[in-house]
Amino acid sequence: MSKQLQQFIDDNLPKIEEELYDLVERIKAPETLTESMLYSLKAGGKRIRPLFVVAVCDLFHNKQHEALTVGAAVEMIHTYSLIHDDLPSMDNDDMRRGKPTNHVVFGEALATLAGDALNTLSFGVLARLENVEPLKKVELINMLSIASGAEGMVGGQVLDIDGENRRLNLSELEEVHINKTGAILRFSIESGAVLSDATKEERDALAEYAHHIGLAFQIQDDILDIVGTSEELGKTAGKDVESHKSTYPALLTLEGANAKLEEHFSLAVSALAKIRKDTSLLEEFARYIVKRTN
Amino acid sequence: MSKQLQQFIDDNLPKIEEELYDLVERIKAPETLTESMLYSLKAGGKRIRPLFVVAVCDLFHNKQHEALTVGAAVEMIHTYSLIHDDLPSMDNDDMRRGKPTNHVVFGEALATLAGDALNTLSFGVLARLENVEPLKKVELINMLSIASGAEGMVGGQVLDIDGENRRLNLSELEEVHINKTGAILRFSIESGAVLSDATKEERDALAEYAHHIGLAFQIQDDILDIVGTSEELGKTAGKDVESHKSTYPALLTLEGANAKLEEHFSLAVSALAKIRKDTSLLEEFARYIVKRTN
Repeated sequence: MSKQLQQFIDDNLPKIEEELYDLVERIKAPETLTESMLYSLKAGGKRIRPLFVVAVCDLFHNKQHEALTVGAAVEMIHTYSLIHDDLPSMDNDDMRRGKPTNHVVFGEALATLAGDALNTLSFGVLARLENVEPLKKVELINMLSIASGAEGMVGGQVLDIDGENRRLNLSELEEVHINKTGAILRFSIESGAVLSDATKEERDALAEYAHHIGLAFQIQDDILDIVGTSEELGKTAGKDVESHKSTYPALLTLEGANAKLEEHFSLAVSALAKIRKDTSLLEEFARYIVKRTN
Repeated sequence: MSKQLQQFIDDNLPKIEEELYDLVERIKAPETLTESMLYSLKAGGKRIRPLFVVAVCDLFHNKQHEALTVGAAVEMIHTYSLIHDDLPSMDNDDMRRGKPTNHVVFGEALATLAGDALNTLSFGVLARLENVEPLKKVELINMLSIASGAEGMVGGQVLDIDGENRRLNLSELEEVHINKTGAILRFSIESGAVLSDATKEERDALAEYAHHIGLAFQIQDDILDIVGTSEELGKTAGKDVESHKSTYPALLTLEGANAKLEEHFSLAVSALAKIRKDTSLLEEFARYIVKRTN
């Protein structure tokens, strides 16, 4: 990781996590529910989505606290999706990031409800944003609802389940990932543009960057499942191969998947070149995503 | 049911259902997901919540189409909560309104995701309301997030589960219901007031009415579980007694529960008296709720 990106993460990660926990701790809910919500929020993770919101705001020299709040909202959505994905009726995962999953600790009923509550809270958090005009809040809420719902993340999850027992082709596999993980990543990047009053051209370029970053992220995920160790990943490696899942390496070979990864990295960087600002941090972010080992 | 209320329902129920199905049919989602969402939305129900939104708008002679849209959003929330409540890890119900529950037809994974998608969609629907100013949309979204989330419906569901294996006292039982069913009913009534630019006094009176209607609704639910038949109810009668659930009749005897029901009905009607408009429809609605047999 470059020094610039490391410095950016060191500066912002603690603020993001403080905002995230604070937003949940201040609600008046039954104690066991808050505990279950915080358990999964505090289980770690790279916080890539909120970091992207802040990084895009940084590009526009927009230092407002609201970037952290929008980042927290998107991390709530990401976390709820993991809690529900891990349920026995879904992926049935006992461990996540080296810790027992939510339903293992709190039971399935509470895990389902904690996920529901995080999903719902994220929209309230956007509605209560301070110093953001109502029209912009409505735009962010509409974007998040589309990105995380049936037309985005949840839809992608359904396509993923539908595809489990057959071999997807490359375009079907891309459709899964554009929805399942790409839509929320794209929201993270575009919401930063909305908060910062980016021009249409800048926003389009960032959306293009987000599209390629999203696919690169997923390809690297698939590659790590093969070349990574369970210890590095904090989850069981080799699970995709064992379950005959459609992945980029399965479709394109490991070499082909690596080439595809490089291609999306280059296209992400080319998209940034359309923005007449110092995009070096976002370029470093793209490089980190393709080079990461966990 | 009075002629006035019957006429109101005959006039508005078809419009509410058309809007509800239309909002889901127009999204671009995987077919199985849309099918699962529509299955539960079309499984019937009294549509009390959207009818309340429209009835409150009627009180202010507000005939805008948006009342139907807000009603559809709240019905999506109600329906998602039923889908998740019925899951094997929660209430484990196979039948609802005389039909197999969502997970029986579509499997647990898709039922969980259909619930998630309906939850998420409801906020997008409010964000996309036409002819409603952004500040009002933000208020409605904030209200719905609080009413349906950890501080409202989901929190009440957690309290209900926590209370399953011990005897609750009356104030604990009221807290469960004020959150679990009352918060969403109150949203239905208050959102109509927001859409119609009600004064603070009118809104407060409607909130008071909503509070008592919510409790009356739940008490009648508990009474029907004892005196109703499974055929009338479209679900298994006598389930509460069998599971030793804390209910109003269990705490107060059937006679005491009936007295409490009458008390909340009277208080709901008294609250309406504070509004200088023709509140006869809302009074009939309250009467229907305490007299209903399913």
